[in-house]
Amino acid sequence: MLSIQIQPNKTKDYIYRQIYKQLKREILLHHFLPHEKLPSKRELSKSLNVSINSVNSAYQQLLAEGYIYAIERSGFYVEKLDTIPLSFSKAKPLDSELVESQESKKNGISFSHMSADRSVFPFDSWLSCEHKALKSRRTELNDDSTRYPQGIYSVRRTIARLLSITRGVKCFPEQIVLGSGTQILVTLLSHLLPKSSTFAMEDPGYTRIYRLLKAKHADLKTIQLDDKGASIEAIKRANPNVVYVTPSHQFPTGILMPVSRRIQLLNWAAEADNRYIIEDDYDSEFKYKSDTIPSLQGLDSFDKVIYMGTFSKSLLPGLRISYMVLPQQLLKKFREHASFLMQTCNVMAQLTLQEFIDSGEYQKHIKHMKKVYSERRVQLIRELKRRFGESMTIHGANAGLHFIASFQTDKPIDQIMERAEHEKLELYCLKDYYLSEEPASQKPTFILGFANLPVEKIEEGVNRLYRALY
Amino acid sequence: MLSIQIQPNKTKDYIYRQIYKQLKREILLHHFLPHEKLPSKRELSKSLNVSINSVNSAYQQLLAEGYIYAIERSGFYVEKLDTIPLSFSKAKPLDSELVESQESKKNGISFSHMSADRSVFPFDSWLSCEHKALKSRRTELNDDSTRYPQGIYSVRRTIARLLSITRGVKCFPEQIVLGSGTQILVTLLSHLLPKSSTFAMEDPGYTRIYRLLKAKHADLKTIQLDDKGASIEAIKRANPNVVYVTPSHQFPTGILMPVSRRIQLLNWAAEADNRYIIEDDYDSEFKYKSDTIPSLQGLDSFDKVIYMGTFSKSLLPGLRISYMVLPQQLLKKFREHASFLMQTCNVMAQLTLQEFIDSGEYQKHIKHMKKVYSERRVQLIRELKRRFGESMTIHGANAGLHFIASFQTDKPIDQIMERAEHEKLELYCLKDYYLSEEPASQKPTFILGFANLPVEKIEEGVNRLYRALY
Repeated sequence: MLSIQIQPNKTKDYIYRQIYKQLKREILLHHFLPHEKLPSKRELSKSLNVSINSVNSAYQQLLAEGYIYAIERSGFYVEKLDTIPLSFSKAKPLDSELVESQESKKNGISFSHMSADRSVFPFDSWLSCEHKALKSRRTELNDDSTRYPQGIYSVRRTIARLLSITRGVKCFPEQIVLGSGTQILVTLLSHLLPKSSTFAMEDPGYTRIYRLLKAKHADLKTIQLDDKGASIEAIKRANPNVVYVTPSHQFPTGILMPVSRRIQLLNWAAEADNRYIIEDDYDSEFKYKSDTIPSLQGLDSFDKVIYMGTFSKSLLPGLRISYMVLPQQLLKKFREHASFLMQTCNVMAQLTLQEFIDSGEYQKHIKHMKKVYSERRVQLIRELKRRFGESMTIHGANAGLHFIASFQTDKPIDQIMERAEHEKLELYCLKDYYLSEEPASQKPTFILGFANLPVEKIEEGVNRLYRALY
Repeated sequence: MLSIQIQPNKTKDYIYRQIYKQLKREILLHHFLPHEKLPSKRELSKSLNVSINSVNSAYQQLLAEGYIYAIERSGFYVEKLDTIPLSFSKAKPLDSELVESQESKKNGISFSHMSADRSVFPFDSWLSCEHKALKSRRTELNDDSTRYPQGIYSVRRTIARLLSITRGVKCFPEQIVLGSGTQILVTLLSHLLPKSSTFAMEDPGYTRIYRLLKAKHADLKTIQLDDKGASIEAIKRANPNVVYVTPSHQFPTGILMPVSRRIQLLNWAAEADNRYIIEDDYDSEFKYKSDTIPSLQGLDSFDKVIYMGTFSKSLLPGLRISYMVLPQQLLKKFREHASFLMQTCNVMAQLTLQEFIDSGEYQKHIKHMKKVYSERRVQLIRELKRRFGESMTIHGANAGLHFIASFQTDKPIDQIMERAEHEKLELYCLKDYYLSEEPASQKPTFILGFANLPVEKIEEGVNRLYRALY
C-alpha cells in the first residue's frame, strides 16, 4: 500500500500538493509497476483522512504532467516510464580541471591593452542619462529585439552623426548594425560577404578575430606589415578578397597607415567586384597630437569598406556595444538573409548611450580621457626611458591605449613571463600576436597598455618590468 | 603658388592647423604633382606672415600622417598618392528599398508571443539594484570581457542557485555560459558539439533557430509532433545526434511533454556517445496551475542535456541575457577551443540581475507576473469563447505566454493577415512556424500571445480578430 504522509499543519504546502509530490516521487522511483492501478479517489481520501477534492486535485495534476493516465469508468493507472537511473541527488562532482579559481588580483599592476579605467568613468552622468532615457523611452524597452535586428533606429542615427563628425564616416543610420562585440559582428559579416571568401589579416594582428574565423573554417591568409602597415605586395601575393585592417593604429604594432597606403588599399579593393576591406577602428578616439587621418570608409567611393568600431575602449569594456557600417550591397544581403537574427545589445545600454552622446557627455568624456591617457603615455615612456635607457626601443604612433617596446636582454621570454606573473604584473608579449609563424629571432617585445595604469602606479609597474627582464 | 588663407582671429583653430588642413586638402585633391617640393618653412612663414613654428608644426603633422615626406638637407615633398576619385561629399543616396520606415504603432494591439509588458516591469527596484550593484562592484566593470568568457562568476553562481530551486537543474556555476541571446548560445554550441553533427528540431518549431542553423549549413532535420511533443519514432527516423526541444511548453504549439516522453528522450540520448539534447526552457517561469515537471536536465544522469534559458521572457526582451548549462564534456571543449570568445552580455545588466535575484526581487516579480499573465490568459480565452463559440479550438498547456487557437472560416489565410494588418492587429500565423512543409490543409491557426496585451485591450483585440476572420 501507499506510504503517503500528510501533515495537515504544514500550512506552507496544500494537502493536494503533498499527495501529488509523494505520488510523483514514488512513480519516478519505479515503486509502482507500469500500468498499476492507483487507489480510487474515494479509497485514498478515506485512508489518508483528507477530502476527496484534495485527492482529485493531486490526480488531475499527475494526469496533466503525464505520470498517470485515466481510463473512463475504470480509474487511474501509472504510466509506463522507461527505466532510467533517475538521480534526485546533486550534480555529479565537477572535474577539478574545470573549477574556476577565484584568485585575488590584489596589488596587481596591469599593462593590459584591453581594459579601461572605471575610476575615471563618469558613472553619475551615465546613470542620470539612463534615468532620462528610461523615463522618456519606455515604449522601446517593451519591444522585442526582433523588431530592430540592427539596433534601435534613433541610436543608430546618433552614432551615424558621431562617426561623421569624428571619423569622416559617411553613412545613413540604415547602414549601421549594432552588436554586442566585434566578434558578433564579424560572425554576422561572414554570412554576408561573398560565399567562399578568402580573408586576410595583418600579421601580427588581432588573434581573437583570427581564431574566430579559423573556427568557422574560413579560408584565411596573413599579411606581413611594412612601415606603412599592411603591405600591398603581401596582399597581392595572398590574393584574398576580404582584408581585415586596423589602419588608424595597427593592432598590436601601433603603426598609423599613411594616406598613400590607404589609397592603394582602396584601389586594390576597387579592382574586383567581390573585394571588401574591413576597417577595424577600435581605438580611433585616442589621438594625442596628430590629427586623425580620415577613415578608409570616408575616403572610399566604391562602397568597399565595412567600417567597425566599439564603445568598449572609449567607455567601458563591459558595455558590449560595437557597430559596423555596411556598404549598401551588403546591407541588401543583410535584409534578405540575416534579418531573422535578433539584436544582441542591451536595450537600456543603447538608449543610455544615445542620451550620453546627444547630451554632449560623450565628447566631454573623450576629451577628458584623451588628457588622462596622453599624460599616462608620456609618463610611462619617460619612466621606461629613465629605467631602461638605450636598451629599449619604443614603436607605434602617438595614439591609442598602448604602444610596443622591445628590450635588450639575454633572458628567454618564458622566464620573463614567469617572473612577471610572480611580480603580479599583467604583461602581454608581442610574439603571441603573430598569426602564422613568429619570427625566428626577435628581441623580447611587449604590448604596453596604459588604459588601466594610474599615473601613481607607473613607477612601480616599470620597476616590476625591470625585475622581470633582468 | 599655394592659396592658403590664414584667419588669425579665428581663435578656435590654431594657425598651424589651418595650414595643415588646407595643405592636406590640396594634396588629396591632387593639386600638387607627386613628389612636388613644398615651399621651405621659411618661405611659407614669410608669405603667410605666420611664425616659422606654425609652419613647422603643420609640416610635422602632414609628415606623421604620410601626406608628405622629408629628404634631409633638402626639404619636404608631396607623397605620390595613387589616383582615386576622392569624394569629400556626403554619402551616396540610400537605395529607397533600404530606407527604414518609422511607422507609428499607435492604437495597435499585439498578439505577439515575443514581447513583454514594460508597464508591469518594476523599473524602480531594478534601478535601485543597479545602483547597489554599481556601488559595490565597480572593480568588475573595469575588467575586460575576455577575463570572463562565460560571464561573471558570481552572477553564474546566482543563476545556478535559481535554476536548482525553480527548475531542478543540477549544475555548478562553472557549467553556465551567458550570452546575449539564445541565437548567440546556439552558434557557440554548434562549435562545441561533435563535428558533422546532424541536428533535428521540432516541427512546427522555433524558426529563428532553424534559420540560424540553416545559414551555418548544418545538417538539419525536422521532427513531427504527436500529442506528447517530439515523437520518438520521428527522431529515430530522422536519426540526428542532436535534438532541439522545448519540453516545458512546446514552441509554438504549447504541448507539455509528459515525463514518460522525457524519459524516452533521455534514453534515446544515452544510447550513443555523440548524442545530445538541447532543452530550450524559454518560458518555464510561467506555469499557471500545474506544477512544473522537472527539467530534462534535472532528470538526466548521463550528462546529455544542454539546458537553455533566458531572462527575456521573465524580465525584458531588451535585457539580452540568456544562458546555457553545459555538460562537463562540452565545457571541456569550450575551455579548449572557445575561450578566445568574449562574453557578450552587458556587465552592468549582469550585476544588476544578480542583485535583483539575490535580493528576492526576481521571485517577487515572477509571482506578480504569473498572476497578471494568468489573469490575461483566462480573460482572453473567455472573450474568445464568447465571441467565437464552437467555431474555435484552443490548444496548448496552461502555461507560458501564448497558446494556439484554430478557427472555422472560409477566408483564405492571406486575406485574414491582410485584414489584421489593416486592423492594426499584430498577429502570428501557425503555418509560418512549419520548418519543412506546411500541412496541406489546416484550419487557420494563430499563435495568440498575451504578454503585451493588457486586460482592458482584450475585448477590442478579440473584436479585431473577429473582423479579420469574418
